[in-house]
Amino acid sequence: MLGLRLATDPRWVNVVEKNIEEILTDHAYCEQKAASNAITCIVKYPEYPDLVDEMVRICREEMEHFGMVHHELQKRGLTLGRERKDEYVNDLANFFKQGGSREQQFVDRMLFAAMIEARSCERFKMLSENISDEGLRSFYRELMESEAEHYATFIGFARKYGKDIDVDKRWNEFLEYEAELMSKYGKKETMHG
Amino acid sequence: MLGLRLATDPRWVNVVEKNIEEILTDHAYCEQKAASNAITCIVKYPEYPDLVDEMVRICREEMEHFGMVHHELQKRGLTLGRERKDEYVNDLANFFKQGGSREQQFVDRMLFAAMIEARSCERFKMLSENISDEGLRSFYRELMESEAEHYATFIGFARKYGKDIDVDKRWNEFLEYEAELMSKYGKKETMHG
Repeated sequence: MLGLRLATDPRWVNVVEKNIEEILTDHAYCEQKAASNAITCIVKYPEYPDLVDEMVRICREEMEHFGMVHHELQKRGLTLGRERKDEYVNDLANFFKQGGSREQQFVDRMLFAAMIEARSCERFKMLSENISDEGLRSFYRELMESEAEHYATFIGFARKYGKDIDVDKRWNEFLEYEAELMSKYGKKETMHG
Repeated sequence: MLGLRLATDPRWVNVVEKNIEEILTDHAYCEQKAASNAITCIVKYPEYPDLVDEMVRICREEMEHFGMVHHELQKRGLTLGRERKDEYVNDLANFFKQGGSREQQFVDRMLFAAMIEARSCERFKMLSENISDEGLRSFYRELMESEAEHYATFIGFARKYGKDIDVDKRWNEFLEYEAELMSKYGKKETMHG
């Protein structure tokens, strides 16, 4: 899916199902972090008006999703817990060295966001096909599509404003790195766990 | 307006008019900071579901406003600049001592946000009545109303979840402090400058 080299272990869904409050809380904060990341992209790159407009749209959409996840919690009599650390995202960040040109850093930031969207999309798809809660199946089917769209948006900006960078080569290396990481994941009841 | 003790010096509008790119850029980042603050409130107080829902709504609205300000820049052939420091907001923060109970800190955070909304509302009103750019007059009239509404939302949560705190007393002290601060402002082409 979206170029990912390693599928999540399907047993991950069994782990998730045992703790719906945990997965929904973690998922809510994934949406919040995606919204915050969109804001960071605006603050870092205000000189690209089309990027700014898209990031406004993405931020608003992620917060809408956050509200939807919060609603799913409330419907089930559950409460949003505290923010969880996202180990996967931290591990992912280690791929990027400090430094490099502004253009390189821009491309890396876009690819980083694209990867998280791609993996989230894969996880949503898995949930939409395998989770036993009927309501959550359709919920994740709906959300899946927008993650795929965001993925394409970030890749598109990397190509558009990273003209001197071999974006495809970088993306392929990053996909390899991510697949290696993923082999140790798929065991916890968090969205990227 | 909204209890503020000292009106902005009306000459502030003359300063602002000389640099529309500057005021619009600064304003855009005020909206962004308000959106980011709404996210922070969610992360800090996930245990209040009604607060979480309202903060989602406010965050999305502030980002919508950000997009609108960005559009006003683009319409005029201007570009969003880099984020500006907000001296007024930093000065305002000095009112709050570190420490205090969680409830006290909650109330303070709500009053802090309410004050920024109140002062922004006053500034928007002044612009809506005095700026010579016709398009910006109606733009600021429209935005003014939602700032007033957000102000009421934050005050409302302070009262609701700060039951053991004398919110009115605290708010009055804070209003006094803000009025004293404001006497040195109204001189720069920024939204709170």
